[in-house]
Amino acid sequence: MIEHLKLNYISKTGIVMLAVVVVCLLLTVPVSAADIDETTESIANLETALTFVWIILAGAIVFFMHAGFSLVEAGLTRTKNTANILMKNLITISLGVVIYWLVGWGIMYGASAYGLVGTDQFLLSGADNSLWNSWWFQMVFAATGATIVSGTMAERTTLKGYLAFTILMVAFIYPIHGHWVWGDGEISILAGSASPLVMAVGAGLHDFAGSGVVHSIGGYAALAGAMVVGARLGKFRNGEPMVIPGHNLTFAFLGTLILAFGWVGFNGGSTLDANDAYMNLVIVNTFLSGAAGALTVLLITWFKTGKPDPSLTANGLLAGLVSITAPCGSVANWSALVIGIIGGIILYAGVMFNENVLKVDDPVGAISVHGYAGSWGLLSVGIFSIGMGNGILADAVYAAEGVGLIYGGFSQFAIQLIGVVVSIVWAFGLSYILFRIIDSLIGLRVSETEEIEGLDIGEHGVRAYPEFILESGDR
Amino acid sequence: MIEHLKLNYISKTGIVMLAVVVVCLLLTVPVSAADIDETTESIANLETALTFVWIILAGAIVFFMHAGFSLVEAGLTRTKNTANILMKNLITISLGVVIYWLVGWGIMYGASAYGLVGTDQFLLSGADNSLWNSWWFQMVFAATGATIVSGTMAERTTLKGYLAFTILMVAFIYPIHGHWVWGDGEISILAGSASPLVMAVGAGLHDFAGSGVVHSIGGYAALAGAMVVGARLGKFRNGEPMVIPGHNLTFAFLGTLILAFGWVGFNGGSTLDANDAYMNLVIVNTFLSGAAGALTVLLITWFKTGKPDPSLTANGLLAGLVSITAPCGSVANWSALVIGIIGGIILYAGVMFNENVLKVDDPVGAISVHGYAGSWGLLSVGIFSIGMGNGILADAVYAAEGVGLIYGGFSQFAIQLIGVVVSIVWAFGLSYILFRIIDSLIGLRVSETEEIEGLDIGEHGVRAYPEFILESGDR
Amino acid sequence: MIEHLKLNYISKTGIVMLAVVVVCLLLTVPVSAADIDETTESIANLETALTFVWIILAGAIVFFMHAGFSLVEAGLTRTKNTANILMKNLITISLGVVIYWLVGWGIMYGASAYGLVGTDQFLLSGADNSLWNSWWFQMVFAATGATIVSGTMAERTTLKGYLAFTILMVAFIYPIHGHWVWGDGEISILAGSASPLVMAVGAGLHDFAGSGVVHSIGGYAALAGAMVVGARLGKFRNGEPMVIPGHNLTFAFLGTLILAFGWVGFNGGSTLDANDAYMNLVIVNTFLSGAAGALTVLLITWFKTGKPDPSLTANGLLAGLVSITAPCGSVANWSALVIGIIGGIILYAGVMFNENVLKVDDPVGAISVHGYAGSWGLLSVGIFSIGMGNGILADAVYAAEGVGLIYGGFSQFAIQLIGVVVSIVWAFGLSYILFRIIDSLIGLRVSETEEIEGLDIGEHGVRAYPEFILESGDR
Repeated sequence: MIEHLKLNYISKTGIVMLAVVVVCLLLTVPVSAADIDETTESIANLETALTFVWIILAGAIVFFMHAGFSLVEAGLTRTKNTANILMKNLITISLGVVIYWLVGWGIMYGASAYGLVGTDQFLLSGADNSLWNSWWFQMVFAATGATIVSGTMAERTTLKGYLAFTILMVAFIYPIHGHWVWGDGEISILAGSASPLVMAVGAGLHDFAGSGVVHSIGGYAALAGAMVVGARLGKFRNGEPMVIPGHNLTFAFLGTLILAFGWVGFNGGSTLDANDAYMNLVIVNTFLSGAAGALTVLLITWFKTGKPDPSLTANGLLAGLVSITAPCGSVANWSALVIGIIGGIILYAGVMFNENVLKVDDPVGAISVHGYAGSWGLLSVGIFSIGMGNGILADAVYAAEGVGLIYGGFSQFAIQLIGVVVSIVWAFGLSYILFRIIDSLIGLRVSETEEIEGLDIGEHGVRAYPEFILESGDR
Repeated sequence: MIEHLKLNYISKTGIVMLAVVVVCLLLTVPVSAADIDETTESIANLETALTFVWIILAGAIVFFMHAGFSLVEAGLTRTKNTANILMKNLITISLGVVIYWLVGWGIMYGASAYGLVGTDQFLLSGADNSLWNSWWFQMVFAATGATIVSGTMAERTTLKGYLAFTILMVAFIYPIHGHWVWGDGEISILAGSASPLVMAVGAGLHDFAGSGVVHSIGGYAALAGAMVVGARLGKFRNGEPMVIPGHNLTFAFLGTLILAFGWVGFNGGSTLDANDAYMNLVIVNTFLSGAAGALTVLLITWFKTGKPDPSLTANGLLAGLVSITAPCGSVANWSALVIGIIGGIILYAGVMFNENVLKVDDPVGAISVHGYAGSWGLLSVGIFSIGMGNGILADAVYAAEGVGLIYGGFSQFAIQLIGVVVSIVWAFGLSYILFRIIDSLIGLRVSETEEIEGLDIGEHGVRAYPEFILESGDR
Repeated sequence: MIEHLKLNYISKTGIVMLAVVVVCLLLTVPVSAADIDETTESIANLETALTFVWIILAGAIVFFMHAGFSLVEAGLTRTKNTANILMKNLITISLGVVIYWLVGWGIMYGASAYGLVGTDQFLLSGADNSLWNSWWFQMVFAATGATIVSGTMAERTTLKGYLAFTILMVAFIYPIHGHWVWGDGEISILAGSASPLVMAVGAGLHDFAGSGVVHSIGGYAALAGAMVVGARLGKFRNGEPMVIPGHNLTFAFLGTLILAFGWVGFNGGSTLDANDAYMNLVIVNTFLSGAAGALTVLLITWFKTGKPDPSLTANGLLAGLVSITAPCGSVANWSALVIGIIGGIILYAGVMFNENVLKVDDPVGAISVHGYAGSWGLLSVGIFSIGMGNGILADAVYAAEGVGLIYGGFSQFAIQLIGVVVSIVWAFGLSYILFRIIDSLIGLRVSETEEIEGLDIGEHGVRAYPEFILESGDR
């Protein structure tokens, strides 16, 4: 009877208390757990939305660089070829959009076959908003690689020959090499963590925004094109390079400033994540290097001739920007300054080398700006890299893994050097072969008469400045 | 006594337990509930802040399009009228800001009277940051509608006549029609869910970013203006259209690329919500269509004359962009490509039609680019729309409701067709009447002497390029 | 035994219940508390990320203003000095980056010594992403202050003399004055809450985005430079100002529109916080004022000469924008309109005053646009300020504290007036001395032969438009 009593009390008390506890649980656990999940999701969505906005705008700024390329190339060439160079640039970006949608993206970012090439997502099949966002940003980069070539080959290259190459560039040359570096974090041959090469060297190639992938590929393809198509009439007299001044320096400078503006999107956007605070280091290093490049060439030309050269100084700015494109997220401010100074020196030396040693005719200096400075940019990572997790890169998530030579590292330098060699061999070698084929099949060079008359009349039947009276010599 | 004992135990135990439970409740419920509300609010604020930033930047990019219009219009006309066309564009955006603040916004977005016109918020009375944000984006659109007209009427229209029309355009023509489509989700006559017309047809007009609301209104107003003001001296000889080349193709191409850049803001920003991931589909479709338009006109002119035409190709890019402005968020990538191709064909056919059939003089091709391609853009929604909630638009919130003809729908096509007719009747009809009134009251066309001498001297007493020697014929 | 029974029951029941309660606590408290902290942190990170993106883009747009300055200055001067003015602008931004990194930032934002000057953070020592973000935005502002001078001194100033001044401007003149206003919220002499001057007057100087700090400093430095270097040959004949037309009005207008576009970043970004919704009020006021400035000068020149003047009208737009740069976040829309109208009047009157009274030669009107309109902008805060916390500024966090004259306040006007005087004395006085020193040490003015021949040949050995035949008089 007492026992029954005990149980009785316990059960009675228990029911009351348990009821209260259950209520307590109902009131609290569900509230917090459910809402927490919801807020966590909202926050994740916001982080994605911010990245979408950032990448769309960064891509837009890079798209605008095509206006910069158009102006630099038009400004540094002659009036009789202006309509033609403008058309080449406009069609390059137009073809870039279509071809990179059809083929390029799939080859660069599709499922990797042995780390060598992408194999699906052609026509962006199965795309969602996230993929469209990435495609937009990568597409404007792809078109940039191609348009670099148009400047170097200006004033003597047929439209159809150039367009044929542009299609091959955006469909295969650029994206295949791009796949090796940016295609697949796991097995991409030059950068994938599980790539045999990377494991052998002990570091993956780091090319943040494309000193190599974009600029040097464009630059060495341009070198191949310049060699196959040959120099403009009158560029070399008894082997001596002659100056053929561009027709509008204001266009060239406006184009240069548009390109510099574009680098905010080009390098800044390449964190590919709006929530990565290191975009700020990227921007500061980018402009420190660009400024250093301009000032260096200003001083070089000032000391050598007593008169600072405008177009070379503008190219110095661009060379500084190209150089920092790979290392901008991996080095200290002072290193960026040094990288830009050396980039400026390389630009100047490269232009002299092309004209006097290689005897190559590059009206806009693109081979030196994008090719040579691009290779320097790749190399500089191996020299100045702080190494992710060290110093100012303590909590970085996207920078060169290894430390550079000056900090005692070697493997990062080794893989960067390999990357330089690979990009040169691939871009120059393949482009050279393709240009030769195009030349023999559809013709790469306009007739001498057309070249003298100008490609605007020959290719388009128009004049860019019909009202202005020009010096006959230049017509 | 035993009874008392029972109660005693229960109460004692109860007090202890209840105390603990209350503590448990105090510790948990308040913490979660309160903080959840707070975080939910912070997240909502962030979503708004992101939208503010996005819309301000998108609007800025659209504002910059006025530089693009200025350059296209200046580049495609003659040196003697350059200062005048530059002034017209600068004043158009300046008037646009003031007039759309005073009147335009209120008529377009104020409380709707019968779905026909807005009736309050003049001078943005009672505006808060959210309204200022919306006004900024809508204002740059309004000014765009007006500036389209300046190009078509270039080289022979008086400044005061043009400015009088611009004021009427931004204050009434544009915003009244705009109200019918974008004004009020409920009762706006062409798109409101409760509009009798929409209910009768079974679908609301979908004009995502303004193929109709902005571009075709501008284009058909331009057509009316061109008819009232007449052709430039020398444009038609015995009824045959003559070519009057523009003075600076580089300006025209730079302007075209600035406009293309501007479309990122124009279409991308038109989701009006930075948290709407479909902006990515919008951007990809926009540039696929623009590129297709350029390549189409490139090929058309190449095949027809053997020499691809630069200014028509540039207009082909713009026509592709105008065409996709309405459907960009409602169609598949391949549809965007097709829409752009047809847009390019329409641009070319439209230019031929204007010159050879209508005998209308449009120095920059704006009627065809913005008017005809704009109408095609509206129609294309009714043909290619996937229908919100279907396929890739599964979780979309802002796209055409109905499915297009190719997917078996009809009502969406019907309302789009009605929208096309309405925009043409309204913009062409009303503008024609107003231009006639302006012509009779203050004069729309400059004197023959002034036209021959150029409007720069006649209207402004300056020359745009005083140092350059020009061919007398063009002076 | 009964007692033991009681305790027994309580303890037993207690253990069961307490266990349940503990479980309940374990299930709820930890969940909510921990996750709440996490989400709160994620939200804070997102707010920061949004600000980083916004400031990087706003800074990029301001950087792009250097293209605008280059074009306005090139367009409003003669062909023979084009390469030189382009170089001066390109080198100004390049030097700006390096010098503001080395010295300028530290002096402007380093730890304040007596509210007069910053004393650390040179070379951005110890910088993190947040500091790099701020530096980027402040750097593009600093370079803007310097580049204003290049336009006023165009066509007769040596490159080395100009560059020497630019270094001093970016290293000391600009940042020291900037420190007084923006340097340290606590003790900065003109604006710090604990500054004796501010406490005496009863209000701190409010210069939202730099009507004074950036524009008027640049404008009055330009005035000093113009006085020291003297007028261009042929500008004044028997004391009468002659018109020396610029060579390319299209460049001038494109530059003007680029600058207006840049103001979105210049004023919009100056909230320095992407989560501050008042950026929308800022943008609307900015463009209302700019538009009012343009329309005002349009009408003034139209009424005075019968022919609206293009370059003055373009400068009217800029004057309106400069005027609203200080008050844009502190005044009502209608006030912005009035401020712009008065800004336009000041621009016109200032240009007349400089030419006819001061006999100062300012080829681009920068003294009036940036100096006089800048001072008006500072003053206008003291006249039209609503006062933070009042009316539409109810929940604002960054606006002028005091109410303006029209609302019965006085101390805000008083401190703004003091700010105007200080900026004039500092910028004009110090610059005048430095220009004199530079002139005597390295020479500020080119030789008469060089000036006649043009600085492009004299300083750079090139011609900007080598193919175009120019009227000998202008060569």
